[in-house]
Amino acid sequence: MNPTIFVKMVLDAWHLKIKEANDIFNRVSDEQLLQEVAPNRNRGIYLLGHYTATHDAMLPLLGFGERIYAHLDDAFHDNPDRVKPITVSAPDLRAGWKNINAVLEDHFNKMSPEMWFTKHKAISEEDFKNQPHRNKLNVIITRTNHLAYHNGQLIFLLK
Amino acid sequence: MNPTIFVKMVLDAWHLKIKEANDIFNRVSDEQLLQEVAPNRNRGIYLLGHYTATHDAMLPLLGFGERIYAHLDDAFHDNPDRVKPITVSAPDLRAGWKNINAVLEDHFNKMSPEMWFTKHKAISEEDFKNQPHRNKLNVIITRTNHLAYHNGQLIFLLK
Repeated sequence: MNPTIFVKMVLDAWHLKIKEANDIFNRVSDEQLLQEVAPNRNRGIYLLGHYTATHDAMLPLLGFGERIYAHLDDAFHDNPDRVKPITVSAPDLRAGWKNINAVLEDHFNKMSPEMWFTKHKAISEEDFKNQPHRNKLNVIITRTNHLAYHNGQLIFLLK
Repeated sequence: MNPTIFVKMVLDAWHLKIKEANDIFNRVSDEQLLQEVAPNRNRGIYLLGHYTATHDAMLPLLGFGERIYAHLDDAFHDNPDRVKPITVSAPDLRAGWKNINAVLEDHFNKMSPEMWFTKHKAISEEDFKNQPHRNKLNVIITRTNHLAYHNGQLIFLLK
């Protein structure tokens, strides 16, 4: 079995869901981002920050380095929408989201297929021996599903 | 590289999203299923039928046999919600959804890891030579993302 094929399958799905998110963000104004996706649900701007914080946390998890957008966690990740004030502008959030995906992509491009099957940072060497599926590529699968889940909500911003 | 690990990664994600859907369906009454997930969006019952029709279509696609719930396509798959009348009861739809996932699971359990990397029925032998990532396991990845996307909407049925 050629691991390149499997890596391509997983990364193709990742790219598709990022494109889906970007296609929605490109169709909504900064003002529309302040609307809730449904009554009493998250606002678009919250999802934008939530996506960015989630993807940023992949940097240390995958061994790619320090976080860039950890300051977003409080408002967009560790608390529900509206609990903490949003102090970042929509254009800055849009730029951050674009940037974190580009930074991740740069790291992905340097990975050999075999490297994807090594352990991520949230599992011990010991546990990984018995659970080799908890590897770096598996992080991409779960984060793609996270994105798909919220894209299904974000699309409701469109009329 | 052991293909068993790839297969487990993909099937784990699939099972997780089916469980997520079931956890929501178990918490909503048949009456609540008739509500829209958001104003002017799909009703819960439409998503239930849509999921079932989509998973049912995987039977021929993966070479597992004839479809069981093709009669759901018109109301739940080929048309948006409310275009065609729903003539199936909520309890019957719930039973169908449970059954189709059990039928698929039976087939999955008979697959060797290598069989997952063979072509599905919607790609020609010729195209598959150049695009070996378009295999049976890839169908599970895309259908898992489909489920994740709509689960993000279905959850809005819960108060």
